[in-house]
Amino acid sequence: MDARAAISELVVANRVVAQLKLVDSFGHVTVRNPENPQRFFMSRARAPGLVTKDDILEFDLDSTPVDLRGMRPYAERFIHGCLYKSQPDVMSVCHNHAHELLPMAVTKTVMRPALHSAAVIGHEVPVWDIRDHFGDTNMLVTSNEMGDSLAAAVGKGKAALMRGHGSVIVGKNVQDAIFTAFYLRLNAEVLIKAMSMGGTVTYLSAGEVDQSGELHSQAAAQGRAWEDWCAQAGVEKLSTS
Amino acid sequence: MDARAAISELVVANRVVAQLKLVDSFGHVTVRNPENPQRFFMSRARAPGLVTKDDILEFDLDSTPVDLRGMRPYAERFIHGCLYKSQPDVMSVCHNHAHELLPMAVTKTVMRPALHSAAVIGHEVPVWDIRDHFGDTNMLVTSNEMGDSLAAAVGKGKAALMRGHGSVIVGKNVQDAIFTAFYLRLNAEVLIKAMSMGGTVTYLSAGEVDQSGELHSQAAAQGRAWEDWCAQAGVEKLSTS
Amino acid sequence: MDARAAISELVVANRVVAQLKLVDSFGHVTVRNPENPQRFFMSRARAPGLVTKDDILEFDLDSTPVDLRGMRPYAERFIHGCLYKSQPDVMSVCHNHAHELLPMAVTKTVMRPALHSAAVIGHEVPVWDIRDHFGDTNMLVTSNEMGDSLAAAVGKGKAALMRGHGSVIVGKNVQDAIFTAFYLRLNAEVLIKAMSMGGTVTYLSAGEVDQSGELHSQAAAQGRAWEDWCAQAGVEKLSTS
Amino acid sequence: MDARAAISELVVANRVVAQLKLVDSFGHVTVRNPENPQRFFMSRARAPGLVTKDDILEFDLDSTPVDLRGMRPYAERFIHGCLYKSQPDVMSVCHNHAHELLPMAVTKTVMRPALHSAAVIGHEVPVWDIRDHFGDTNMLVTSNEMGDSLAAAVGKGKAALMRGHGSVIVGKNVQDAIFTAFYLRLNAEVLIKAMSMGGTVTYLSAGEVDQSGELHSQAAAQGRAWEDWCAQAGVEKLSTS
Repeated sequence: MDARAAISELVVANRVVAQLKLVDSFGHVTVRNPENPQRFFMSRARAPGLVTKDDILEFDLDSTPVDLRGMRPYAERFIHGCLYKSQPDVMSVCHNHAHELLPMAVTKTVMRPALHSAAVIGHEVPVWDIRDHFGDTNMLVTSNEMGDSLAAAVGKGKAALMRGHGSVIVGKNVQDAIFTAFYLRLNAEVLIKAMSMGGTVTYLSAGEVDQSGELHSQAAAQGRAWEDWCAQAGVEKLSTS
Repeated sequence: MDARAAISELVVANRVVAQLKLVDSFGHVTVRNPENPQRFFMSRARAPGLVTKDDILEFDLDSTPVDLRGMRPYAERFIHGCLYKSQPDVMSVCHNHAHELLPMAVTKTVMRPALHSAAVIGHEVPVWDIRDHFGDTNMLVTSNEMGDSLAAAVGKGKAALMRGHGSVIVGKNVQDAIFTAFYLRLNAEVLIKAMSMGGTVTYLSAGEVDQSGELHSQAAAQGRAWEDWCAQAGVEKLSTS
Repeated sequence: MDARAAISELVVANRVVAQLKLVDSFGHVTVRNPENPQRFFMSRARAPGLVTKDDILEFDLDSTPVDLRGMRPYAERFIHGCLYKSQPDVMSVCHNHAHELLPMAVTKTVMRPALHSAAVIGHEVPVWDIRDHFGDTNMLVTSNEMGDSLAAAVGKGKAALMRGHGSVIVGKNVQDAIFTAFYLRLNAEVLIKAMSMGGTVTYLSAGEVDQSGELHSQAAAQGRAWEDWCAQAGVEKLSTS
Repeated sequence: MDARAAISELVVANRVVAQLKLVDSFGHVTVRNPENPQRFFMSRARAPGLVTKDDILEFDLDSTPVDLRGMRPYAERFIHGCLYKSQPDVMSVCHNHAHELLPMAVTKTVMRPALHSAAVIGHEVPVWDIRDHFGDTNMLVTSNEMGDSLAAAVGKGKAALMRGHGSVIVGKNVQDAIFTAFYLRLNAEVLIKAMSMGGTVTYLSAGEVDQSGELHSQAAAQGRAWEDWCAQAGVEKLSTS
């Protein structure tokens, strides 16, 4: 995939996350520049459901814009730059406030997968609390120092919850990041209801997380969802993806 | 913005609150007349999703209609007049019964923000109980005396829940009132689920409420949601807003 | 309103209850013949969302069809005939299994209104258990004996829950029955969440039920919802209603 | 019904389960070949909402494809083959991960019907845990040995939950399988909420399960839902069904 295709796919991805309600008017998905791993593409500050090709900007890994073309960038671009720096294999990052996972984030519950398709979130999803590191803030991740702290919480993992705020998810490509975001949210929803009914949750075993996570990270599984989601969002699946 | 633009924006606002399901067939949003702060605009008694320009009426701050043109006003217009009187900086008021926040209102839970975007609701949202002040009623706010009592509960704040009834939210403009109403509802939904799962909620600190509230009150944040919501409602965003 | 207009309104009502998801493929709404109070109109056995004028049949108050025209009637038409017999002022009956109120019906919780707009359900909504009166059955109300038992549980009230099954609601006209069904469901949803979060519910006082119930039974309130619901269902509001 | 009609109906069924959100991008519904009971029809590996006639493949009861025509089969086809082998009267099988029933599956709650229309699920729905029989796996049913184990858990019943995964439902035809899947999910949703509110659930009695299950298994009941669901999915109901 070249840079031009990556940008096209990023536009599709923005429509998909809006259609899936993984984002409301806030949240963002980005892709690393496949032609230059020291750069990534991200929309200007705009609701994901409205993003077009002309909104896409390029940033270096310090989240400095290459050329703003008169547009306003997202304040939280540092989330993305710092995760691309921290995990060289990561090609896509999604930051969202999906409404259904927020109860987990405000109770600071460390989440583990209980669903086979949610094995892609890994063994545990930590909760990063900006206040633990930076005291009282406006809660946005608006500097490289903050982004690095969040990236350290993610470690080599796939995701973190952000206390009182939302979540961040990384992927080996756009489909992987969104697939993981989708099943992270579903895992949260299911656990919240299971706990509410007073049940004892049977989580996946470590071996199941490894094996089912491996399976659901494959293009065969993720491509099936991607074709479906693109159709639901009314956008063309890229032939290059 | 002149009066004519304010009326156009009010029509858009009615469509937006219907699309977002902040209102069902009941509830209302109003705007202060920018040309005459002793007056405000409000639809005739009609479901917000159906409101057009021809439905808009003008009222003074006692909620007396300037000219009914043969139409029936909302019985609860006093909520609006009294809040415009009480808070001179308020330019828009929203009264709604959003279904998802009602469990808070029937349990009289004083709500605090646990989400960064909900910091706009302020440090606490009080529950005003009409019965405490007026005994048994039909529960509607149908006089200036009742409206003043509700406005006193809101004080210098942004919102109040109304026991067994709904909520009221004020804003420095239409977008601000609806943005606050949207995240008031989300905060309620998230807290209800968090409490149901038996979790201990971490609320925003006082400093976080101040800083995140300030941030999410800015046009940069609210305008992003507004553009998105207008598109979802299929209405033109006003160039003047 | 003549019989012809009542039939037209009944078709509209079927579309509305389907659009509001008060019914899924099952459930029914009926209207008493305004020209002959010993008769009522009801669709043939069909999902409400698909009902047209040609599907409407007429029944006497024993729920015997006047002329089936080769069509199959609903097995539970006795619910309707018996309620029209029992309450001469009732002009419309709705029987539904709205998904959100079913948790109340399986726990046999006697419901009271906690929302001002739900005051129309009356002071208490009893739970009628067919097993208490008829032992093991297929749980459908398929005879006048069963219908009379259910009507006795409703008494002079507006509604009853049916254990393990759903609800029945009566109205002074079609709008009234559907309005009451809508807010019966909302009241159930809100109470279920309030109880789940461990809160202490403040119910309406007896005086509030009376005064708010009176207010929300008026055409001014119900007509506003009706205009909105007809627009949502894409059907013409009848000028005669 | 001949094989050609069965294939047409299977395409319709795929659209219906997608429209009803019984499946997301995963899950599948199949039909036994009415001309050869040792064979069944199933889509290639694709999201159900996108399935067309050209996607349908044929398998024998060992789930070996008759002719793949260059397409990739679902990995879990063994669920279907083994259930057709185990229950000769079964003509259709549905495997889904309907989001709303998953809390039951992660808490390993043995479900019983509390709703009259859910009597079709039978007296009890067991939870099959792949780990009990096969240790750590990727949790997919990818062999005849695994499929036989699941089929044994279903026994002569209508359904089983699969721990951490989803559910499987059998039917005497496509409508029956989907009808049962629909009310299995609703029963789960209602029970989860009833338990969350701390209520004591009144389940159907054994006699009620038998009588109401018999009633809701009839074409009169299931056909009403099927006509409705086909209309909602925008597909033609087959005249042959």
